[in-house]
Amino acid sequence: MQNNRIRECCLIKALFLRNNFQLSLEETPQPVISKPGDIIVRVTASSICGSDIHFITGEVPLEPDFIIGHEGVGVVEEVGSGVEFFKPGDRVVIPYMVSCGYCSECKAGRAYACLADLQFGVGKARGDLPGTQAEFVRIPFADSSVVPIPDSVSDREALFVGDILSTGYFGVTNGNIQPGDEVAVFGAGPVGLCAVACAKLFSPSKIILVDLEDYRLEAGMRLGATHTINARSTRAGSEIRRLTGGTGVQVSIEASGAEAALDDCLACTAKGGILSAIGMTPFSVKFAMGKMFYKNLTMISGYTTLNEMRRLVKLIECKQLDLTSLITHEVPFSSILEGYRIFQNRLDDCIKVMVVPD
Amino acid sequence: MQNNRIRECCLIKALFLRNNFQLSLEETPQPVISKPGDIIVRVTASSICGSDIHFITGEVPLEPDFIIGHEGVGVVEEVGSGVEFFKPGDRVVIPYMVSCGYCSECKAGRAYACLADLQFGVGKARGDLPGTQAEFVRIPFADSSVVPIPDSVSDREALFVGDILSTGYFGVTNGNIQPGDEVAVFGAGPVGLCAVACAKLFSPSKIILVDLEDYRLEAGMRLGATHTINARSTRAGSEIRRLTGGTGVQVSIEASGAEAALDDCLACTAKGGILSAIGMTPFSVKFAMGKMFYKNLTMISGYTTLNEMRRLVKLIECKQLDLTSLITHEVPFSSILEGYRIFQNRLDDCIKVMVVPD
Amino acid sequence: MQNNRIRECCLIKALFLRNNFQLSLEETPQPVISKPGDIIVRVTASSICGSDIHFITGEVPLEPDFIIGHEGVGVVEEVGSGVEFFKPGDRVVIPYMVSCGYCSECKAGRAYACLADLQFGVGKARGDLPGTQAEFVRIPFADSSVVPIPDSVSDREALFVGDILSTGYFGVTNGNIQPGDEVAVFGAGPVGLCAVACAKLFSPSKIILVDLEDYRLEAGMRLGATHTINARSTRAGSEIRRLTGGTGVQVSIEASGAEAALDDCLACTAKGGILSAIGMTPFSVKFAMGKMFYKNLTMISGYTTLNEMRRLVKLIECKQLDLTSLITHEVPFSSILEGYRIFQNRLDDCIKVMVVPD
Amino acid sequence: MQNNRIRECCLIKALFLRNNFQLSLEETPQPVISKPGDIIVRVTASSICGSDIHFITGEVPLEPDFIIGHEGVGVVEEVGSGVEFFKPGDRVVIPYMVSCGYCSECKAGRAYACLADLQFGVGKARGDLPGTQAEFVRIPFADSSVVPIPDSVSDREALFVGDILSTGYFGVTNGNIQPGDEVAVFGAGPVGLCAVACAKLFSPSKIILVDLEDYRLEAGMRLGATHTINARSTRAGSEIRRLTGGTGVQVSIEASGAEAALDDCLACTAKGGILSAIGMTPFSVKFAMGKMFYKNLTMISGYTTLNEMRRLVKLIECKQLDLTSLITHEVPFSSILEGYRIFQNRLDDCIKVMVVPD
Repeated sequence: MQNNRIRECCLIKALFLRNNFQLSLEETPQPVISKPGDIIVRVTASSICGSDIHFITGEVPLEPDFIIGHEGVGVVEEVGSGVEFFKPGDRVVIPYMVSCGYCSECKAGRAYACLADLQFGVGKARGDLPGTQAEFVRIPFADSSVVPIPDSVSDREALFVGDILSTGYFGVTNGNIQPGDEVAVFGAGPVGLCAVACAKLFSPSKIILVDLEDYRLEAGMRLGATHTINARSTRAGSEIRRLTGGTGVQVSIEASGAEAALDDCLACTAKGGILSAIGMTPFSVKFAMGKMFYKNLTMISGYTTLNEMRRLVKLIECKQLDLTSLITHEVPFSSILEGYRIFQNRLDDCIKVMVVPD
Repeated sequence: MQNNRIRECCLIKALFLRNNFQLSLEETPQPVISKPGDIIVRVTASSICGSDIHFITGEVPLEPDFIIGHEGVGVVEEVGSGVEFFKPGDRVVIPYMVSCGYCSECKAGRAYACLADLQFGVGKARGDLPGTQAEFVRIPFADSSVVPIPDSVSDREALFVGDILSTGYFGVTNGNIQPGDEVAVFGAGPVGLCAVACAKLFSPSKIILVDLEDYRLEAGMRLGATHTINARSTRAGSEIRRLTGGTGVQVSIEASGAEAALDDCLACTAKGGILSAIGMTPFSVKFAMGKMFYKNLTMISGYTTLNEMRRLVKLIECKQLDLTSLITHEVPFSSILEGYRIFQNRLDDCIKVMVVPD
Repeated sequence: MQNNRIRECCLIKALFLRNNFQLSLEETPQPVISKPGDIIVRVTASSICGSDIHFITGEVPLEPDFIIGHEGVGVVEEVGSGVEFFKPGDRVVIPYMVSCGYCSECKAGRAYACLADLQFGVGKARGDLPGTQAEFVRIPFADSSVVPIPDSVSDREALFVGDILSTGYFGVTNGNIQPGDEVAVFGAGPVGLCAVACAKLFSPSKIILVDLEDYRLEAGMRLGATHTINARSTRAGSEIRRLTGGTGVQVSIEASGAEAALDDCLACTAKGGILSAIGMTPFSVKFAMGKMFYKNLTMISGYTTLNEMRRLVKLIECKQLDLTSLITHEVPFSSILEGYRIFQNRLDDCIKVMVVPD
Repeated sequence: MQNNRIRECCLIKALFLRNNFQLSLEETPQPVISKPGDIIVRVTASSICGSDIHFITGEVPLEPDFIIGHEGVGVVEEVGSGVEFFKPGDRVVIPYMVSCGYCSECKAGRAYACLADLQFGVGKARGDLPGTQAEFVRIPFADSSVVPIPDSVSDREALFVGDILSTGYFGVTNGNIQPGDEVAVFGAGPVGLCAVACAKLFSPSKIILVDLEDYRLEAGMRLGATHTINARSTRAGSEIRRLTGGTGVQVSIEASGAEAALDDCLACTAKGGILSAIGMTPFSVKFAMGKMFYKNLTMISGYTTLNEMRRLVKLIECKQLDLTSLITHEVPFSSILEGYRIFQNRLDDCIKVMVVPD
């Protein structure tokens, strides 16, 4: 008990999104166990997500004044009395949101819809849970939310499991790729690149990657893309139909969030195909519903279910997935604002920035 | 051989869609076997489809000058030398399009995408196959396209199997309804009503039917709807959320073709739910993609696969499906234009018109 | 704390399976919260399961000296500090085993394989968790294990949700019954009768029920069986083939545990069909593997996943499932041994015995 | 017409299975078109199947006096008047049986159960269709049965598509392997080796191959097996559990036909796993049904559906599958009996024998 009181006095550093959408690196009290199912995790690596940029620019409207960040890995520092499966010292993946494990949604395998509705680093929008761009983070419902990292997997390797890698895998499995299928991925940002690496696991005959930046398309080739299209110079929809003998792809994955890319997906997906939409497109779009109908398409959208974090850790462990090439930059936590500047402006061919303790 | 020559001289009556979108009941040579896989069917009952109205108004643009019609049942009159499974005298369901049974699409269970691309009664748009609003019709690829009707099933009962009932069943099975689920059906036209009857087979706890016409909503109650909403007076999206305790329905079926109904579907479908879109909405719509994403929805659209015609005949035979109540009017073939007038203007609470030989 | 100490002194009545397989109604200390995730439930109704009979006869070998029972409903009396979703006074279904909600098996939707491996009323075989044939029962991992019962559902209605009804539903959904399919259920014991009631939800054209007892077959007719076969007088396999025009059933459900019934299932299932085996057959059987191969069968076996308890409660609430007709007898807890005598010997056309507090 | 008459006089060489199970290379009239849907194929490569050995030893009892053989590729020589999609000169894969494309079984994607029931090279057992170990073969229902071979795929590459490769792929897809899963394949004969190569397409973390012959295990390593077990010296079930940390494999594939291997599959498959049984085990076996039940296993058995022949050709074309290493021996047709001797006795590390025209 005494120990806890001391802890409460401790201050940690954390990155706040303050009013007027200003990022501010500040000291704040260290989080403490507040419910029996909580754990406190010392963050050993975190990252900046494309969503964070949407938040700080106001594109995705959030009420500011919270600790930002929702990607990371760390070491369990303290566990609540109700925690059964973790103990101090365990290394864990931190998911972008927690899963109570009880509600009808969690039971149905839909963590994203957990009725507790607690997401890290988005403020009051979803439960006001302080984010992971901090030295320590409190994780409620820990038993059903975090997954262990084995010794043979490094932080660098496991960094993306709790958000973008789960999202890429989710987007790919929603597409139900069969060996020999042709696949198009729109967007060679971090999520799109994870989708390329995951798509490769299902042995498609072609993975056609579309983006506006050559350096990202090249990164995609290294992860398994077989063809790339720079949409600045080439019309993606027609090029994909050409590459597929006029048929189109069986599976298209929209990971860019661009309305035009969504439209291209509708154009380039073959009859009876699947459009897996994991990008955050504008809320309202002009949509070629006629293509959905006349081509009998299925569109599956949304957040990752987070069901496959254990599988992803295993695939990393057995060397079937390696996303460390996405980490083009590494900054100490005290320089996280510099990390934001590089990431937001795509300086120096940046793809992802890993943030490590000072 | 002589017999065939005589036949070629025979004239039959058929309804043409002529230039300027005029319907015209005319005499035309009786169709003859032109390939070994053909059969000639004497039409014993046909019907007018909502699509036909789209064709004659020009809403769905087609190049006129063809025999219209794509729903019906009949008796095999003659079979080509390559036909293995049908003989003169057999009663059969005529599907809205034929399925070659060979191409990769047919093999994959996607008759709608058959590479032969032959649909009845839409002119050059899809193979220029003369339609079923005629005394006789030629059916290519008969073995893999038509299904037999047992003696215990009447023409009246089997009439909708080849088009709207298959479509309703397809829309329902795409929704993957589980017992106890809540379902909304938008549109109480013939397809929507078929969807209601088919949804009932999967034991949802609620079937909420939405339309603008009370007489159609009442028809829906008789087929299994548990709740109805007249969207003239009630906002469907919010009423459905209210009826489902705020959650929304697990499955929504859009069978009206109205852009507003599609928007309501996005609004009233629960997180992780399925939107099955079988209505012919406008080609381009304003679409709340944000609802797809933030609620992790799946949307499945398109034409029926026609895979389940045999099952539907069996369900009719064992009295688990009965759509005869949709037939509010019956006209002889020589009065088919009067049938069009009644159907198009929804006179006298018309739902479907059955057209029978004179 | 003082309260707890008093509680520990309290004695409750419970039915022990003692050495030499003797049942013994005894006093024992009331269970107390031992971990933060525990709840204590006052049992308001329990039942005797066919498995219990296997246990007391030694057919399923268990190490005796434990409180027996694994079916029931009750009221939450006390909750541990880590319990988030239940409070004293809540009415709940008690499942046959608990689900930790954390392990890879629970996460994969396989509660039966939960690595905590805690089943009620089977002694040391699976975690030594005292059973439900007692006045009170302790339930670990309560948040992820029990489900709430709404006010409109009675104990009598909810009694079977946690074991035999879940098992029947599991057996049926494993069979993937489609509307119009033909189904055979072997065994009209409590589990088989639950399977009949659940199968009906999927609108098969025939449900053929096989048993040796006419009164049980009649109970099955009331729950939805369309045909019955008394296997004492009729060879089930050939009779089922006759009833299905020689084809056999698309889905067979083995719920009797008899080796001969399993063999009949192999004989009467159509090519490409599914054999859902939920009965506890002998560990080693003579098995017609050739029928599996030459008919391309799928056999799915095992314990219920318990995933659908909430759905079953909802189906009961909306009157789509009613298994109360299985309760042919009711005894007060002090007469539970009389209940065993009636159930074990099938006296007075007994199907299930409900045990209620004195 | 005249041409046909001449053809009928032509004699071809074919291998007969005669009375007393004697193979006999004889002259016989060249097959001719007998129905409009037939094609005549000149066999450019065929192979000897393990099943053929079962037939000539009488293990699988057939009524002799027929042309044997059911694997091969060839060139279309002549087409019936009802054939729509093939013309003389086309290269095609010959499937082990034909698919009428019309019956309810073919429509449901179950070619193996086609009601026409015509299999090559098994005599009266299934339609008395002369086999492929002949210079020419007649193929009924050609449009829905054979698949084309593109120019870039050689006979040698396509040889196994119509039987053992389809079977291996079928066994693998029935197992529903997910990336990172652990898989065991029992039997490194031709079918088991095809299963190994196909399993690799789904990115399991381990493919554990079990056989009695080291040279076959080595062939499996070249095709993607990660671990091998020679069951002469090592107990496979326990070794597999050891290799998987005690859990067992998520998917086991029985491709040996040995009763002991089937038993090992039951022993080594993890809870909730799938046992895919594609080997021809004895008709009746001693079977550990208790393992099915207590581990909630699913067993899927049977002949390949033949649905994926086009996909397999495509996977070969794009170099994702290459089974040519199975062809350890090549003989001219006139030496086919020598081929049988080598194959049956596994001489000279034989796996498969390709038979080519003289």
